Amino acid sequence: MPREHFRQLMRVETARRSLFRATRAASVRRSEVVPVQDAMGRVLARSVVARRYLPAFDLAVVDGYAVRSVDLHYASSKNPRILQLVGESRLGEICRLRVREGQAVAVATGSAIPKGADAVVMIEHTRKLMGEKIEFRTRVGSWEGITRKGEDIAPGRMVLDRGSRLRPEDIGALKTLGLGNARVVRKVRVGVLSTGNELVDSTRKRNTAKIVDLNRPILSGMLRQLGAEVVDLGIVKDDKKAIKAALRRGLSETDLVLVTAGSSVGKRDLVPNCINSLGRPGMLVHGVAMRPAMPTGLAVVQGKPIVSLPGFPVSAMLAFRVFVRPLLANLVGAPEPVEPTVRAVLKEKIAGMPGHRTFVRVRVCRGKDGYWAVPLKAQRSSLLTSMVDANGIVDVLESSSIIKAGAEVTVTLTGDIRI
Amino acid sequence: MPREHFRQLMRVETARRSLFRATRAASVRRSEVVPVQDAMGRVLARSVVARRYLPAFDLAVVDGYAVRSVDLHYASSKNPRILQLVGESRLGEICRLRVREGQAVAVATGSAIPKGADAVVMIEHTRKLMGEKIEFRTRVGSWEGITRKGEDIAPGRMVLDRGSRLRPEDIGALKTLGLGNARVVRKVRVGVLSTGNELVDSTRKRNTAKIVDLNRPILSGMLRQLGAEVVDLGIVKDDKKAIKAALRRGLSETDLVLVTAGSSVGKRDLVPNCINSLGRPGMLVHGVAMRPAMPTGLAVVQGKPIVSLPGFPVSAMLAFRVFVRPLLANLVGAPEPVEPTVRAVLKEKIAGMPGHRTFVRVRVCRGKDGYWAVPLKAQRSSLLTSMVDANGIVDVLESSSIIKAGAEVTVTLTGDIRI
Repeated sequence: MPREHFRQLMRVETARRSLFRATRAASVRRSEVVPVQDAMGRVLARSVVARRYLPAFDLAVVDGYAVRSVDLHYASSKNPRILQLVGESRLGEICRLRVREGQAVAVATGSAIPKGADAVVMIEHTRKLMGEKIEFRTRVGSWEGITRKGEDIAPGRMVLDRGSRLRPEDIGALKTLGLGNARVVRKVRVGVLSTGNELVDSTRKRNTAKIVDLNRPILSGMLRQLGAEVVDLGIVKDDKKAIKAALRRGLSETDLVLVTAGSSVGKRDLVPNCINSLGRPGMLVHGVAMRPAMPTGLAVVQGKPIVSLPGFPVSAMLAFRVFVRPLLANLVGAPEPVEPTVRAVLKEKIAGMPGHRTFVRVRVCRGKDGYWAVPLKAQRSSLLTSMVDANGIVDVLESSSIIKAGAEVTVTLTGDIRI
Repeated sequence: MPREHFRQLMRVETARRSLFRATRAASVRRSEVVPVQDAMGRVLARSVVARRYLPAFDLAVVDGYAVRSVDLHYASSKNPRILQLVGESRLGEICRLRVREGQAVAVATGSAIPKGADAVVMIEHTRKLMGEKIEFRTRVGSWEGITRKGEDIAPGRMVLDRGSRLRPEDIGALKTLGLGNARVVRKVRVGVLSTGNELVDSTRKRNTAKIVDLNRPILSGMLRQLGAEVVDLGIVKDDKKAIKAALRRGLSETDLVLVTAGSSVGKRDLVPNCINSLGRPGMLVHGVAMRPAMPTGLAVVQGKPIVSLPGFPVSAMLAFRVFVRPLLANLVGAPEPVEPTVRAVLKEKIAGMPGHRTFVRVRVCRGKDGYWAVPLKAQRSSLLTSMVDANGIVDVLESSSIIKAGAEVTVTLTGDIRI
């Protein structure tokens, strides 16, 4: 009797693979050159191979005295050796001194090692005597207390792989190698389109049947957090022509289009047909065995991915996490960032829908001996508070049904854990 | 014999507590008003209580027919009930229709429920007959298929607590409540100062004893990732007057000062004395039982925290993670964000220093049945690659010494896991 049903729901993993396979060729190939200081979070388009030495010279890594280790070969507390202090290697200055037999040169952490010396003895293990003489009570290994020129990085060493998402320490490495610029993958441009006759950007009226569109602001925020560039495709009415025109604009201006609502199989669900009418292969997946966000569609048109997300913001966010987040990483050739998780004990049982991936929103609290996860009472995807009140999601696999209270589960955190 | 030693190293947890206690009064109290769309990642200065209903009217959450549930009380597949379709509640339009006994009104997801109706039957469970008649083969519960006005959020409900770090879904909530602006805690202003005669911002010369300062760019990057505002206090020479002047500037212009190098107990380590000369209480902690970053100092002057970080960038980064990261959260009154971790099997044994917290840098790789953690050969804090080559850190507690190969450990991820 059901007249409008999904013929078959695809499993999450199958749907994901299908999307990734079809979009393999869609990766963002264009790169751009940006100043190193602006490159944080960007993805390297080319591996970086060092052309300089780090450090650029042999340097002391402790405060003390540069010596010839051979001179202290027999030094011990019973048999201290005394060397003649012949000068100081000053920080930041080229050292013209040479350490000869029986001699020592004062050094500080970071100062250049004088010629002839092959070790630095920490000042704590020495004593300064009259007449610029230094007493040593321990022997020292060759190159002890020194970082050698190029020991950290030598020319020809691959320092950062293509596909690296640049972290502060990587920016440091690029800077110390003398690189002023970095060649990074262009940001993914993502078009965000909302459909629905009821949608407005804001409303002040009390008596209205309009609904404020939250999908564009929420998805734009999620996209920016992940380093994408957002192109706002606006709100269009439930009208084939308007939807197609907006999608076409998205396809021409962006690398990926997200369109919300109208994604199901009812007569008002115009998006899947609109997508199919724009080119091949069109919809790859329509309907996913997941809750919420079952009416999710994944498509490729003109080599570009289009993701058709359900209209409820909670569903759109969850489908975004499952499909768009990894897709964005694929498009720039970087791994998907690992999300923070905690192990927590369920306060109340949760129920998955057998055969479906169920994303249960929970509130994680710190307990005495660990974390508790309290499933939110409101789990309906129509309720925004089912996401706003949550700080974590339990991903219940297709094979699970009920997870009992007291069981330990992995919670992916979506927000801070308050005390 | 050791002449210049730390008298006593403080345990990490004790040092942290001492810093947090002394800086409790230092929290950033000033707030500012920003447009909601620019508030992502910011911390709410005041709790947000709803003044509107969400949804603003009773609405359908499925496509179907709005009915009086009482009319379908006896409906079943054996005993279908037929109702008269009297109109449609259009999306985005105020509905003037009323459902009377024996009547139904067509609705779409998001459209207003006509007066008189108290349930929506999904279109999949109905059949349209001739003469605008609809056949129903199931009963329906009262308020099924409907989200009631205010069911998600009603006026007076606390929607977001003070101290919430705003996420995309929170921005959505603020927007739908009609809030154009949000009152957020002012960003923490952090002064970043490097000390050392050898330091320069960049160098092109091959024959030089200068060292490129990486601490300011690296720490600035880490600070910005955490939502702080950076004030660059530059590089100063190892000179008391210069250091004090820069610290004074930092204290007057910022909420927190980070100063790198000169943090130990040698005669060149001028920073702790400079800090103490600026005011009370001065250095709270000097020397922490941790590796690397043992010569870390924690101070409060004029009610403002100063963190004296070791000069090696690797040490500075690790001390930043341990002390500055949680301090930043405290200062804005938000919890410290949970970092991503994975459980991984050690490929090789690691050795902690008994009585010290040891931060071992590892490379995490995906194995067949889980993750492997390979400790980097280079662990010396003087080597930048000991951080750049790593994507994770194993925090070896004071009570541990050797952790054997094959043991499972928790790794805090500092970078992506490549395939």
